[in-house]
Amino acid sequence: MRYTLQVQYIGKNFAGSQIQFENGREIETPTIQGELEKALCKLIIGGKAAVNKTRQVKTVFSGRTDRGVNSEGQVVHFDTDKSIVASKFVYQLNEILPKEISVSDLKAVDEKFHAQKSAKSRYYRYVFVNRKCKNAFDGDLMRVKFDINIDRMNKALSYLLGEHDFSSFKSSGTLNPSKVCFIEKAAAYRDGDKVIIDIVGNRFLYNMVRTIVGTLLEIEGHNRSAELMKQVLDACDRRKAGHTVSPYGLTLMKVTY
Amino acid sequence: MRYTLQVQYIGKNFAGSQIQFENGREIETPTIQGELEKALCKLIIGGKAAVNKTRQVKTVFSGRTDRGVNSEGQVVHFDTDKSIVASKFVYQLNEILPKEISVSDLKAVDEKFHAQKSAKSRYYRYVFVNRKCKNAFDGDLMRVKFDINIDRMNKALSYLLGEHDFSSFKSSGTLNPSKVCFIEKAAAYRDGDKVIIDIVGNRFLYNMVRTIVGTLLEIEGHNRSAELMKQVLDACDRRKAGHTVSPYGLTLMKVTY
Repeated sequence: MRYTLQVQYIGKNFAGSQIQFENGREIETPTIQGELEKALCKLIIGGKAAVNKTRQVKTVFSGRTDRGVNSEGQVVHFDTDKSIVASKFVYQLNEILPKEISVSDLKAVDEKFHAQKSAKSRYYRYVFVNRKCKNAFDGDLMRVKFDINIDRMNKALSYLLGEHDFSSFKSSGTLNPSKVCFIEKAAAYRDGDKVIIDIVGNRFLYNMVRTIVGTLLEIEGHNRSAELMKQVLDACDRRKAGHTVSPYGLTLMKVTY
Repeated sequence: MRYTLQVQYIGKNFAGSQIQFENGREIETPTIQGELEKALCKLIIGGKAAVNKTRQVKTVFSGRTDRGVNSEGQVVHFDTDKSIVASKFVYQLNEILPKEISVSDLKAVDEKFHAQKSAKSRYYRYVFVNRKCKNAFDGDLMRVKFDINIDRMNKALSYLLGEHDFSSFKSSGTLNPSKVCFIEKAAAYRDGDKVIIDIVGNRFLYNMVRTIVGTLLEIEGHNRSAELMKQVLDACDRRKAGHTVSPYGLTLMKVTY
């Protein structure tokens, strides 16, 4: 049987979502996937197997999130022959997982369902604080001290809507050769001292959301025109975009199938 | 000149708000007061003085908060002969302070003002999660798995209103001999998965709010009558009350003068 889970996590203390191997050895631990597979293995197969380093219950994530990036709606699938009682299973899995990782919404799905390949869209949210002075409750969010013009930000974001080559906003290290993404929503708004940027697209390149936010801040910080976003997009040149901002404000909100 | 500041902090990584001495030596560091006095000293007197262990700028807090307790509205006063430009001073002080401590609302006040003695009331908030399953975003909040009856909780809290001897809700170690407090507000409500309890009083005994919350949970968890709160209050006996709950959900919201 194939099952899906929604996975919530705070990425700060993890080396990204995905288990990474080098010469057959797992490197850069802990990862969200590593912790989840250990917990699933402990629950499904039993105590001793979980200590074993071979991946006895494998998970497939909707997509990779980087070190420091959070999730409210990551989707994962895994296969098992064991029968699972949903409410008990989710509760027990949560008790085993580290406190910064939780799961919900266990569902049995068709074996053709694939958490990554079946995904139609991903919804990311970036949040930063827009205030001159620090506040103890800002946590790890980036603080932008200069005034933000939300209307200009929304105009700049509007150039990203539709299908484009997003080469300008990808960091090196992207394995997928295609740089074309379809963006269906990109909007900024203010919530008290915070600025929230929501972007929904069929796929995202490596560091793409964080580089889009960096480009927005380039426009705001230097009082440039919103059209700069279009120029950067059209250039298909990473050197034209702003810097890649901190991962801590980024959350994978939802994956739609 | 005497000045006041509002101080916000996340108490988790601090040994309470107040500097504590034993045989003339500071023990159990870091404290909120210790960090604030070091930063004030650095800013008002200069770099070298801040390294010196003598307290060259002394602060008076509205009251002590324990290890792990947060503040959104702690009030502090301090005296200095140096002239202070409010906006610059607050900004610079924030940049020096650790990220879990911030200050705001600097005001020059009359020399008769005293952050502790002039305070008319303190407003504390306790927040816990009421949900069976864990969520990665719960942070350090206590999770209560059984159902909470908010109406019964409010009835139980209503017995605390007015002037009473709160001996039943004080932990040992309270120095002040008087156990009489006047509670002007005590109310519980639900906000999504969270339960929020707001209590306003002229003063609070050591661990009083946390022990009141522990007694509410004793009523809820064992399906007891709300009148149990009145029985515990009347008994003036700490052994009749519930346990002292985790400090992480507690925040000093506001001090009124």
